[in-house]
Amino acid sequence: MERAYRLIISCPDQIGIVAAVSDFIAGHRGWITEAHHYTDPASQWFFMRYVVRAESLPFGIDELQRLFTPVAERFGMQWRVHDTGVRKRVVLLASRQAHCLSDLLYRWRSGEMAMDIPCVLSNHDDLRGYVQWHGLRYCHFPVDPARKVDHFRAVEQALAETAPDLIVLARYMQILPEPICARYPGRIINIHHSFLPSFVGARPYHQASARGVKLIGATCHYVTAELDAGPIIEQDVVRVGHHNTVEDMIRLGKDVEKQVLARGLRFHLEDRVLLHGNKTIVFA
Amino acid sequence: MERAYRLIISCPDQIGIVAAVSDFIAGHRGWITEAHHYTDPASQWFFMRYVVRAESLPFGIDELQRLFTPVAERFGMQWRVHDTGVRKRVVLLASRQAHCLSDLLYRWRSGEMAMDIPCVLSNHDDLRGYVQWHGLRYCHFPVDPARKVDHFRAVEQALAETAPDLIVLARYMQILPEPICARYPGRIINIHHSFLPSFVGARPYHQASARGVKLIGATCHYVTAELDAGPIIEQDVVRVGHHNTVEDMIRLGKDVEKQVLARGLRFHLEDRVLLHGNKTIVFA
Amino acid sequence: MERAYRLIISCPDQIGIVAAVSDFIAGHRGWITEAHHYTDPASQWFFMRYVVRAESLPFGIDELQRLFTPVAERFGMQWRVHDTGVRKRVVLLASRQAHCLSDLLYRWRSGEMAMDIPCVLSNHDDLRGYVQWHGLRYCHFPVDPARKVDHFRAVEQALAETAPDLIVLARYMQILPEPICARYPGRIINIHHSFLPSFVGARPYHQASARGVKLIGATCHYVTAELDAGPIIEQDVVRVGHHNTVEDMIRLGKDVEKQVLARGLRFHLEDRVLLHGNKTIVFA
Amino acid sequence: MERAYRLIISCPDQIGIVAAVSDFIAGHRGWITEAHHYTDPASQWFFMRYVVRAESLPFGIDELQRLFTPVAERFGMQWRVHDTGVRKRVVLLASRQAHCLSDLLYRWRSGEMAMDIPCVLSNHDDLRGYVQWHGLRYCHFPVDPARKVDHFRAVEQALAETAPDLIVLARYMQILPEPICARYPGRIINIHHSFLPSFVGARPYHQASARGVKLIGATCHYVTAELDAGPIIEQDVVRVGHHNTVEDMIRLGKDVEKQVLARGLRFHLEDRVLLHGNKTIVFA
Repeated sequence: MERAYRLIISCPDQIGIVAAVSDFIAGHRGWITEAHHYTDPASQWFFMRYVVRAESLPFGIDELQRLFTPVAERFGMQWRVHDTGVRKRVVLLASRQAHCLSDLLYRWRSGEMAMDIPCVLSNHDDLRGYVQWHGLRYCHFPVDPARKVDHFRAVEQALAETAPDLIVLARYMQILPEPICARYPGRIINIHHSFLPSFVGARPYHQASARGVKLIGATCHYVTAELDAGPIIEQDVVRVGHHNTVEDMIRLGKDVEKQVLARGLRFHLEDRVLLHGNKTIVFA
Repeated sequence: MERAYRLIISCPDQIGIVAAVSDFIAGHRGWITEAHHYTDPASQWFFMRYVVRAESLPFGIDELQRLFTPVAERFGMQWRVHDTGVRKRVVLLASRQAHCLSDLLYRWRSGEMAMDIPCVLSNHDDLRGYVQWHGLRYCHFPVDPARKVDHFRAVEQALAETAPDLIVLARYMQILPEPICARYPGRIINIHHSFLPSFVGARPYHQASARGVKLIGATCHYVTAELDAGPIIEQDVVRVGHHNTVEDMIRLGKDVEKQVLARGLRFHLEDRVLLHGNKTIVFA
Repeated sequence: MERAYRLIISCPDQIGIVAAVSDFIAGHRGWITEAHHYTDPASQWFFMRYVVRAESLPFGIDELQRLFTPVAERFGMQWRVHDTGVRKRVVLLASRQAHCLSDLLYRWRSGEMAMDIPCVLSNHDDLRGYVQWHGLRYCHFPVDPARKVDHFRAVEQALAETAPDLIVLARYMQILPEPICARYPGRIINIHHSFLPSFVGARPYHQASARGVKLIGATCHYVTAELDAGPIIEQDVVRVGHHNTVEDMIRLGKDVEKQVLARGLRFHLEDRVLLHGNKTIVFA
Repeated sequence: MERAYRLIISCPDQIGIVAAVSDFIAGHRGWITEAHHYTDPASQWFFMRYVVRAESLPFGIDELQRLFTPVAERFGMQWRVHDTGVRKRVVLLASRQAHCLSDLLYRWRSGEMAMDIPCVLSNHDDLRGYVQWHGLRYCHFPVDPARKVDHFRAVEQALAETAPDLIVLARYMQILPEPICARYPGRIINIHHSFLPSFVGARPYHQASARGVKLIGATCHYVTAELDAGPIIEQDVVRVGHHNTVEDMIRLGKDVEKQVLARGLRFHLEDRVLLHGNKTIVFA
């Protein structure tokens, strides 16, 4: 993939935003390869994602940011530029189940997913060998149910040391304390094993089986202080029937979970997800 | 479709049920064209659906029932036989929206759906012309919000007079009073415009939009006294995105609603749905 | 839906197109409600669709076209502007099967699909009553297999008289002669009852059954002189199994056919489909 | 999973088959946990799959086979019994691409997929380290394009030595010579990266892109001497659009390929797939 800059903008909608941004890019002979914009009709808030070939511009990212600042200020933009040559640092948190972690590590080692993985954290030691085979660091912080605080302190410190751009809860079965959630707003992604808002909380496949639903699903969302209530990035479902036991649902659900997490994570890594209150704009 | 008898059985699971039933059918030279059975592992309850060509048996349905009774008694069966030559009588209840009603009437008049429609009931007069063009009876019982009881009394009486095998709420926007629900257990089908158990009650598409889900759905279920909580027959979903307004969701949802209702109704008409507590066995 | 102008553009990709167009719109204080653009990387051809609120501009469509012409000429654009206040004239061709026609007429009479229907043409008289109930003109041109030319001459003349913007083959079972295809390039839509390019030609469900596929589908495409080979607008599939007969496939396929045709037609009516050789850009 | 015997039967349809089989099982107090049967209406051929708890029977598999033989002979059955306690031996053939192989190895090592893997064969050495980390044998047989025969002789010999129950082509990019195909009828599974019968042969995603389809798919099928024409076990699709390059399709397709292969393989491992000419009965 050729090096590019991704320009991500949101601001109150006004006439002339697209003209100003595209004038700016064209004025510097920038070559736009992807362009999305959208205005939320209720809030009249504008969202934009432009991808510009790095080599088409006569300057680097610092100069791009300096020169674009007056345009941004004119429209009161929240904005950022990402250089696709700089990989995001993603810390993975897991527990014992390997399906999501294995899937993400495959996508990472095959080059399908552009990210660096400073370490994998877990409350169990089960996945150490597999992770270390990949040449990745594995940190095992056991959970003492009577003193969970120790676990979370260790997690918090490890996160602080690795300075992650993103934290992915890849079937990490613990509920992150509020201070950790607050420290990384819009930067913690979880995969929940139900089609939210159905079946919040523990054992969603048991809940689904008890209710007799005909489809089960998974939801990739940003983590907020309220359990399973953060902005949804991606969801999908799979058909089940009366003959499927809870064990079947758990097995079938794993395939949906890993697909949905991978899609959601990819959207985030490519700067396709813009937050808007408790909802997401996904320029897929 | 060739005339057939559908034998529907449920009972506690025991060794020898299938042998006894298939011995009985084979002993009379009956030709089985479809066969399903299933045992719920939790309750150890057994469910069975056999379809036998009518002409392969040397007797009619009365004699079939008489001769099968000892077999049924031996295993403590709840059972029934349906003659596919006798169409079920289905009363449709609608309001103003035509999408589900139009879809069902197309399936009825094209012969795709085997049922008789003694009448269509509605709290509005909008769909009268369309229904009457089909040669069907249309009953308009307006709702006075201050005296809903009058409407429901009229509905209840009309239902009693038509002696329906099944009542279909085809986007009838009223909540049926408990006594009507109780009078037709397992014989009232509703289409709810959400992927239950998400978004129970009013304006589910508004709820879905507010939550920012990435798929919306519809649920066909039996009506019980508790709102939107009855046994689910069929569900499906369609993908939506940030750019879809509530109006878009309503439009996209209509296509899912009519498909899901048609599939659920068809399952019921073909005696493929067996109730098991608050869940369904669907021999699709 | 508020009145709007849809500006549809394609041209060789160059730096500055988006800037020029958005400058033009912003310079006249136009309010853009939808915007899509895309460059095909192989051909370096650029495609654009802008929707602008009519009332936000200080002039009507004629002045808009006059003023935009220099911009268009600068970039060598193929372009057009559609006024959403002017409904497209759509002639429907059908045969005996009613599922697609009924579905389209429901969407038309409910206001879901913005089009005028000058007439419905058919080689059979079966659907006359249903069509006429809608207040629409019905033209029955029988096909004499020995002299099909008479039928097509009548069709061609009726089309010429109605001056349609679009012709929809809603399960019209005849193959249109090449001269008619040539007269309405990009303006004839067909629904083919297979997932093209599988099962071109006659009896695709029989072909699908013989091959033992596990999904069957439908394809909405523009008609060209080569049978079932025109640019694809939309496709979808439904799962089938060994237990599904050809008759089941025909029934299940109908639901996919009408959905796919409705979606494809809607894309066309909203000017979302841009032709690019034998492929389509669909700004959905 | 509790140990069970799977009884797989096919024979000409006759009255009394189910009665005879279920009598036999019930007569020995066997506990049936799954039961499927189906008669193909065109050929009047009967197919059956029964799963019986091993511990419910008073004897082992040898005695079961001995006692059932007279029943089987009476109806001219082709039949076999599988003991779930005996894992199938599955040889995997791969090339350079890891997605299907990684997926299968995850399912194997997590215990989701019950099989033994005597070895992985490949024409490249790329995946050796990954395979060997799992403690599995890796055989690298390079392909000299001028002397492919050497490669296939090595493959054939390695297969013969491992005596596999099943051979899985997990994106092995070579076409197996006819003698190998003939030696393992119904025992070689391939994953083809298109929705067959569309896009047979090489570079199906390039073909799909050139045709402009709106869905791409994958097909799991048994290998026969005719390329990509064997009986289909499972298929699925994923949506694509004009903005998806061939590279995108390859990436999106990988997710479908591995899912479809895993489902098809699982069906085979659980003896759910019965061959019927060039079609499959899948008791899913």
